[in-house]
Amino acid sequence: MSSVRIPIKCLTSQDPGFRETLLSSLSLPMADDEAIDAAVVRILADVKSRGDEAVIALTHQFDRLNVTSVAQLEISRQELKLAYDTLSAEQKSALDVAAQRVRAYHERQKIEAGCHSWEYEEADGTRLGQKVTPLDRVGIYVPGGKAAYPSSVLMNAIPAKVAGVKEVIMVVPTPDGARNPLVLAAAHLSGVDRVFTIGGAQAVGALAYGTQTIPSVDKIVGPGNAFVAAAKRRVFGLVGIDMIAGPSEILVIADGTSNPDWVAMDLFSQAEHDELAQSILLCPDAQFIEQVQVSISKLLPEMPRRKVIETSLTNRALLIQVEDMSQACEIANAIAAEHLEICAAEPRKWADMIRHAGAIFMGHYTSESLGDYCAGPNHVLPTARTARFSSPLGVYDFIKRSSMIEVSEAGAQTLGAVASTLAHGEGLQAHARAAEMRLKTVL
Amino acid sequence: MSSVRIPIKCLTSQDPGFRETLLSSLSLPMADDEAIDAAVVRILADVKSRGDEAVIALTHQFDRLNVTSVAQLEISRQELKLAYDTLSAEQKSALDVAAQRVRAYHERQKIEAGCHSWEYEEADGTRLGQKVTPLDRVGIYVPGGKAAYPSSVLMNAIPAKVAGVKEVIMVVPTPDGARNPLVLAAAHLSGVDRVFTIGGAQAVGALAYGTQTIPSVDKIVGPGNAFVAAAKRRVFGLVGIDMIAGPSEILVIADGTSNPDWVAMDLFSQAEHDELAQSILLCPDAQFIEQVQVSISKLLPEMPRRKVIETSLTNRALLIQVEDMSQACEIANAIAAEHLEICAAEPRKWADMIRHAGAIFMGHYTSESLGDYCAGPNHVLPTARTARFSSPLGVYDFIKRSSMIEVSEAGAQTLGAVASTLAHGEGLQAHARAAEMRLKTVL
Repeated sequence: MSSVRIPIKCLTSQDPGFRETLLSSLSLPMADDEAIDAAVVRILADVKSRGDEAVIALTHQFDRLNVTSVAQLEISRQELKLAYDTLSAEQKSALDVAAQRVRAYHERQKIEAGCHSWEYEEADGTRLGQKVTPLDRVGIYVPGGKAAYPSSVLMNAIPAKVAGVKEVIMVVPTPDGARNPLVLAAAHLSGVDRVFTIGGAQAVGALAYGTQTIPSVDKIVGPGNAFVAAAKRRVFGLVGIDMIAGPSEILVIADGTSNPDWVAMDLFSQAEHDELAQSILLCPDAQFIEQVQVSISKLLPEMPRRKVIETSLTNRALLIQVEDMSQACEIANAIAAEHLEICAAEPRKWADMIRHAGAIFMGHYTSESLGDYCAGPNHVLPTARTARFSSPLGVYDFIKRSSMIEVSEAGAQTLGAVASTLAHGEGLQAHARAAEMRLKTVL
Repeated sequence: MSSVRIPIKCLTSQDPGFRETLLSSLSLPMADDEAIDAAVVRILADVKSRGDEAVIALTHQFDRLNVTSVAQLEISRQELKLAYDTLSAEQKSALDVAAQRVRAYHERQKIEAGCHSWEYEEADGTRLGQKVTPLDRVGIYVPGGKAAYPSSVLMNAIPAKVAGVKEVIMVVPTPDGARNPLVLAAAHLSGVDRVFTIGGAQAVGALAYGTQTIPSVDKIVGPGNAFVAAAKRRVFGLVGIDMIAGPSEILVIADGTSNPDWVAMDLFSQAEHDELAQSILLCPDAQFIEQVQVSISKLLPEMPRRKVIETSLTNRALLIQVEDMSQACEIANAIAAEHLEICAAEPRKWADMIRHAGAIFMGHYTSESLGDYCAGPNHVLPTARTARFSSPLGVYDFIKRSSMIEVSEAGAQTLGAVASTLAHGEGLQAHARAAEMRLKTVL
């Protein structure tokens, strides 16, 4: 077994221009590709105008499925249940545990994260508050083909169902008719209502505009390729969308007390996603960084996806020696990583200093992969530094709020005078008059 | 005083094809204008590459300001305070009351709407939760020129400050150097940290990329013209943005117990915003609809903005006779209006049936204009049917969440086996190995 050293980029925080080098090495939000965007505009217009007919033609063109009606592209609930029933006992049990834990976490989130209506009354009887309602209907895009991830089905569908969304419609392309039984089983377990075997921009268009057979939805979530991402951007506004996900990232902060093999494997577990995935290690201990390098060389040859891992590590990974753990936390805030592992003896101490990260994995036993599958929190996380302003997918993405305002007759007297003054100041006299008319002593 | 009847479109819910007619009459999300978009791409690229220099040149070009440094475009805190101090007592007091009420409502929202961290521990010692942190720095776009709205400053800046955002940077164009003292006073009252007199796509670019003088922000909120909207769409992903607002809308559901003058004036108060604004009345009582028509004819001549109101009502308004109040609520859910007034004897009864609306104004005394200025809830609301999936601007828009995961050694044993099975099912062996390495009995 060869043990070649992978040429991973090494930095220290004392390098001149360190901060610029670091920031310019990070992933950027996906840029629009003009050719892809132009193709997507054509596909969306076709689906909007021809509906089912366009979906049938495009699914024939891209996935080589021959059907005469969109109804033939729907997978019945019985088929979903059958896919689940025929899993191996081990797979069934693993999927059960994962679904149950993801549901439990999101039910807790529904309570804690303010997904409830509230109201308060003021002394004059005026009542103010917010009403929370779930979205009516949500579409979930699930990639097909090579990268078919049943865990994504759980992570997207369960929060929607916990939020109270009545109808969850899943789309999943099945090129050449290849269906992934684990994906269908996950749809069954998550309570997905309807599944159509369509994909690409045509699936996004069908969900956004609706066709004769496929109902239009209020929001579309879930990962997809560049065509899917461009289509989601284009229909944003007509429907809601989740974030456009970039390549996956992990940042490990290590104090040197970890098993270097564990750290190396955690870096691999991002790198194996694709060549653009990024793995970064921050550590004050030069010797530990060297041990991780040795572990990488030792463990890589045994990985089935070693080609992808090697390319990703060579092109994208960074091993950074920092002055101390406080500086590591400060740099971590600048990176705002999707996944942040704190592999340290006192992980909470350092977690308190973190402001920006999609998910924070604390302690030696919390491998990022546990969070990907079954710890409970969502694995759909903000990438490309967007953790500075956005959150993991959650129940809160499937509810929305309406302000509730009931001004009493007494309240209308005091508020009316204020509104009148401000409205006149903005030159909006009808606004002012509407308030003044409710005054007992008309101004 | 002439009392010409405005030709407003009248429908009844029993008209053939009513639902299609209605939906096709509603405002759509703003479409991209290719020419505007192309200009915006050029401006953004210029600001990104030349920084301050581009901001100075573009502000000279568009707003005719002659400065040699961006520092000259900054308004000091002293100037903001002076603008406030020199307001009339009436305006100062009205702005004070509005700011205080908006702050009180959003402080309540911060508590109720889940803007706090939470965590729970499982039997095996595994701890799961979410950490909530405010955004570091936020940019607020405030339109200048004709439509200068101090209330918008309060509605955008106060929730950010209540959320705990450390630095709020406001940009407001001042064409030909014209500054609006009410806008500056509102910035002072809301705790805005820095103000630059820049606008258009160049202001959005400066906030998104940062320049030598203007710091980059994490999110940009606030209304603007088509150039500002296009620029916000383009920088979305690099920074967060709020919704792209369309023309304003009001939907009034009336049971016939209201004063028709009040209803007419409430319809005016949307219509006066601009020619594209839309006012709709739903009422089961044909006689009341007729009374509102009479009130419209009677009240319109006295309105200073009657030209705008008349154009908006003629082109965009709808008076719809429905079968009963239940049907009115059902239609209101299909419309998903930005502002929904329920002018009825029992407003709560009908509000319970509403699922989709930006804000719900209940009872005869709750004119929409009270909500615009000083009731407390935010006046930045989802337009163009986006209330189906989005919410009023709120404290929740200025915080974000990080998942917190700390798996105990015992937890890693049970979760590790599950993650291993699922990871192998997805062909991600490094994910599986990372979980397996933490097992005491290595698989």
